[in-house]
Amino acid sequence: MDIATIVGVFLGFMVITTAIVIGGGWQIFIHLPSVAITIGGMLCATLIHFSLPQFLGIFSIIKKTIISKIPSQAELIQKMVNYAAINRRDGALALEQQINNISDLFFIKGLQMLVDGQESEAIRDIMSLEIQNLQERHSTGKKILEFMGAAAPAFGMIGTLIGLIQMLRSLESPESIGAGMAVALLTTFYGALSANLIFIPLAGKLGIYSKAEVTAMEMIVEGVCAIAQGENPTAVREKMQAFISQGRREEVKANI
Amino acid sequence: MDIATIVGVFLGFMVITTAIVIGGGWQIFIHLPSVAITIGGMLCATLIHFSLPQFLGIFSIIKKTIISKIPSQAELIQKMVNYAAINRRDGALALEQQINNISDLFFIKGLQMLVDGQESEAIRDIMSLEIQNLQERHSTGKKILEFMGAAAPAFGMIGTLIGLIQMLRSLESPESIGAGMAVALLTTFYGALSANLIFIPLAGKLGIYSKAEVTAMEMIVEGVCAIAQGENPTAVREKMQAFISQGRREEVKANI
Amino acid sequence: MDIATIVGVFLGFMVITTAIVIGGGWQIFIHLPSVAITIGGMLCATLIHFSLPQFLGIFSIIKKTIISKIPSQAELIQKMVNYAAINRRDGALALEQQINNISDLFFIKGLQMLVDGQESEAIRDIMSLEIQNLQERHSTGKKILEFMGAAAPAFGMIGTLIGLIQMLRSLESPESIGAGMAVALLTTFYGALSANLIFIPLAGKLGIYSKAEVTAMEMIVEGVCAIAQGENPTAVREKMQAFISQGRREEVKANI
Amino acid sequence: MDIATIVGVFLGFMVITTAIVIGGGWQIFIHLPSVAITIGGMLCATLIHFSLPQFLGIFSIIKKTIISKIPSQAELIQKMVNYAAINRRDGALALEQQINNISDLFFIKGLQMLVDGQESEAIRDIMSLEIQNLQERHSTGKKILEFMGAAAPAFGMIGTLIGLIQMLRSLESPESIGAGMAVALLTTFYGALSANLIFIPLAGKLGIYSKAEVTAMEMIVEGVCAIAQGENPTAVREKMQAFISQGRREEVKANI
Amino acid sequence: MDIATIVGVFLGFMVITTAIVIGGGWQIFIHLPSVAITIGGMLCATLIHFSLPQFLGIFSIIKKTIISKIPSQAELIQKMVNYAAINRRDGALALEQQINNISDLFFIKGLQMLVDGQESEAIRDIMSLEIQNLQERHSTGKKILEFMGAAAPAFGMIGTLIGLIQMLRSLESPESIGAGMAVALLTTFYGALSANLIFIPLAGKLGIYSKAEVTAMEMIVEGVCAIAQGENPTAVREKMQAFISQGRREEVKANI
Repeated sequence: MDIATIVGVFLGFMVITTAIVIGGGWQIFIHLPSVAITIGGMLCATLIHFSLPQFLGIFSIIKKTIISKIPSQAELIQKMVNYAAINRRDGALALEQQINNISDLFFIKGLQMLVDGQESEAIRDIMSLEIQNLQERHSTGKKILEFMGAAAPAFGMIGTLIGLIQMLRSLESPESIGAGMAVALLTTFYGALSANLIFIPLAGKLGIYSKAEVTAMEMIVEGVCAIAQGENPTAVREKMQAFISQGRREEVKANI
Repeated sequence: MDIATIVGVFLGFMVITTAIVIGGGWQIFIHLPSVAITIGGMLCATLIHFSLPQFLGIFSIIKKTIISKIPSQAELIQKMVNYAAINRRDGALALEQQINNISDLFFIKGLQMLVDGQESEAIRDIMSLEIQNLQERHSTGKKILEFMGAAAPAFGMIGTLIGLIQMLRSLESPESIGAGMAVALLTTFYGALSANLIFIPLAGKLGIYSKAEVTAMEMIVEGVCAIAQGENPTAVREKMQAFISQGRREEVKANI
Repeated sequence: MDIATIVGVFLGFMVITTAIVIGGGWQIFIHLPSVAITIGGMLCATLIHFSLPQFLGIFSIIKKTIISKIPSQAELIQKMVNYAAINRRDGALALEQQINNISDLFFIKGLQMLVDGQESEAIRDIMSLEIQNLQERHSTGKKILEFMGAAAPAFGMIGTLIGLIQMLRSLESPESIGAGMAVALLTTFYGALSANLIFIPLAGKLGIYSKAEVTAMEMIVEGVCAIAQGENPTAVREKMQAFISQGRREEVKANI
Repeated sequence: MDIATIVGVFLGFMVITTAIVIGGGWQIFIHLPSVAITIGGMLCATLIHFSLPQFLGIFSIIKKTIISKIPSQAELIQKMVNYAAINRRDGALALEQQINNISDLFFIKGLQMLVDGQESEAIRDIMSLEIQNLQERHSTGKKILEFMGAAAPAFGMIGTLIGLIQMLRSLESPESIGAGMAVALLTTFYGALSANLIFIPLAGKLGIYSKAEVTAMEMIVEGVCAIAQGENPTAVREKMQAFISQGRREEVKANI
Repeated sequence: MDIATIVGVFLGFMVITTAIVIGGGWQIFIHLPSVAITIGGMLCATLIHFSLPQFLGIFSIIKKTIISKIPSQAELIQKMVNYAAINRRDGALALEQQINNISDLFFIKGLQMLVDGQESEAIRDIMSLEIQNLQERHSTGKKILEFMGAAAPAFGMIGTLIGLIQMLRSLESPESIGAGMAVALLTTFYGALSANLIFIPLAGKLGIYSKAEVTAMEMIVEGVCAIAQGENPTAVREKMQAFISQGRREEVKANI
């Protein structure tokens, strides 16, 4: 569960809402036709830009980014070191009982191949393909979110142009001008807010999450392959630690 | 037939049209001189930027992107595996009857060369050139659409400047100012709408379509070359599956 | 003669002029001081950015892009095949009479070196340097046009700022405000129009023209070197065809 | 202590404050709700974009950039040459007493490994990892600051849109319009000022500081490894001078 | 002395000044507080972004770009050919008398090393480092000028925001509004003018000057090294001519 994302979105909307409520007249900020132009237009452009499966896949990727948990690196190393010890003492088959203790599907798949007696190179090939697959899905997700972050303000501006043209058509009294322009500006407001508070930062978070998850997966691959080659627990630990920066190794050691 | 593109364009125009009709005064949004400045100016700039054949080719590429169908990967693999079996059992000449069952011209060309007894390397060379050719045409098409997406708002702004200057020349009554500015803003509206709902997303779709079509073509090349080398159906399947991400292989298997 | 460029510029100005004339008051759009600020300022910035010879060379490059003719690829191949046949039958010296039939200076230079009995490698070295030279000149030309396309709107905005400040200094009557703003906006109009209808598209065309001319020159080098190595007409044709995409070879064959 | 940064920030705020005070009505420029929208919104977007540890780490990086001192290159070389002499005369153990004279933790770590008798290659591996680690932290810091520099004006614009919509809702008297717009523009002002005077230049300074610190660290690695290989003082000096540009070597020599 | 730069800056200011004087009320365009905000703010941001020595070095680089003279390539080649002849006839020591005829410090340094009897490789190493050094200084200078060209309009906008907020605070009469807005727009005008007429084009010129100077220096290195290897004058000429494009060699020959 990525707390920073949830806190950021929550606080961000709090700040904006408070500013709107304090300024008075919050009712004017809720205008469904303006939402329809900005978000609807943006979604249509996204649908034209990407293929249907890519478009539908983005929501599950966002959900997973926010909800799923990247396994702690210290925990990963400790588990793998334990498995290396079990493997050396009791053989690979003894690892089968450990699989139930793991929740990460990728880790389970690796251990299963280990138990099945597959060779180190075969395990690495299959698991690396899986990592590539994930990276490509994440990279497409990032591109979709970035496109949404560019299209939302564009359709906000289009909505404002429609509103302005309609308002200018009949300039009767200053009051009607003001109300008309206020409504016209709403779509620009929706577009700028959704892009800058949601789409652009989420695209960035997806990149950072993707990098962290890929590192964890690469550590699992390295560990499982080392066990498959029958290396001792110390060698397994060292191979996996190569993924952690020098500075953080102390922390990791302290946590073990 | 790419449904996402058609649905996106249709829904997008629906959303914008509804917003215009609800707001009242939809007649003002139809103004042919403004269309002429925005779209005409944009087309002229595109004509100056690109060569005449490139300019004329873009329409057929867009049409093909929307209409043509990328062959299903599962189907492609299954067909190729069948042909490998026929080739091993009855020889390459027996494949000639299968050509009638295929609609993809590129696939037909590959099979024909197989039937003609050409060697694997010769087939790969000729078909790879064809793929390069397609990629270059698609890449030029993408550049043209991206240029159109940049030129349309620019000429929209030029049209608005013309309208503003004409309106400012004679400021008599607030009503005439309003009507003048409304008309002046129309070109900016046309430019922003056509760029963000049509040209920019279509350029993106062309890129995604190009990638998918090239992958399918590369799978055909791989399959035909494997058959030409006399490999067995299982080897052919495995070579073609290398193009599909691990996660999707299960689906593909399920579909066969 | 590149018709697309001429037609594009002509039609573009037609569209803009028609819009101005229909709207009324075309006299206001002709204002020499505004032209001086926009185009003069842009030229001064270009003079500061580039060296004097680069600045002066741009006009001849543009002229050449519009006027000169890229030799037809089919014609080039056919000529070279004929020369290969003459070379094999009568020796290189017999090619001397053919030089008079060619108008392309680069082709003449290649043939002359052939007649002079220079070796294939020497010809390739000298002619490749010539191609590099042309590419660098074109690339500088493209950079200058792109800079002009960025500087023209910037000086248009500077001119509008000057006009606005002068107008705001004395706000007496709405009429004078309108006229003042109309004049102030003229420089932005000139800057946007010249950039989007002339400089930016011309920079693009220069890139496309450069690519086409370089391909033709590379085909000549390939052909002349093949003849210098005494290859037969069929081999010469095949070497030159490698520059043409598979799809266009049929056309080329049909034209021969 | 980087004086340029402190002087720049101080003078920059002085200039802006003076302009505000001279113009009169400085009280209007202090408006906490506007600060909350601009800076609060920007911080929330940054929190969504980056992970919590990255977000929290940025402040310590900025502080370190301003406060910490990059060791003088001349001093570094002189110290290392002395240590090389001590090492050749009295052995590595004699260097232990020198460690107390150094304040740079990285330098201490290198010398300690030297005293511990580790081999040149092991020292280089461990210290290079440390440098990579620092570079990655600095690069993340630069990205965060650049994102802040992009998000602050965006939330400034969002705040201005909120203010404009609220103001346009009720247009009663010119005075209230003016005051409303003045407040609405404040968020844009805060966003532009914080981005252009703080975030964007600080991101640049972080890049320049990072480059200088990495060079100093690489010089230390080179020097310590040379000593570990038992090279003589002159060879150590020459190896470290390779990091200094020819022109600055004279200065360095003069300073020694 | 780069005439294009001086003429461009002079003409550019002439054009702008004429436009201002003709339009009337030139006094309003001179407003020291606005200059202070725009140029002062920009300089402060530059001070924060770069280190103090980099910031101070930019002025000498600009001065050198405008004043110093890149040696003519034809002259360089001719001199080097003469020195090669002297070297072959009378030995390297005879070159010592020629050093007094040269004004370029880099050329003198090269000849001195030749006279001192240093080997070709040593000369190349030392002189190449010098070239790298110059390139890095020029590249930093270009980055500073480009940053100034981006920061000046940004602080211009900040100044305009300050002016607008102050003006909107008290809307009494249309005249005061006009005068207030005119002053507010001045900072944007200063920022746009200084960026587009000075900083951005100067950054471009620095790049072009840097390339030309580096080419001249590389020609000197090539020539001096060839002489050091005892090559004959013709070989020296050919090695140096490799830096000149084919087309310009005729000119160079004609000038010799």
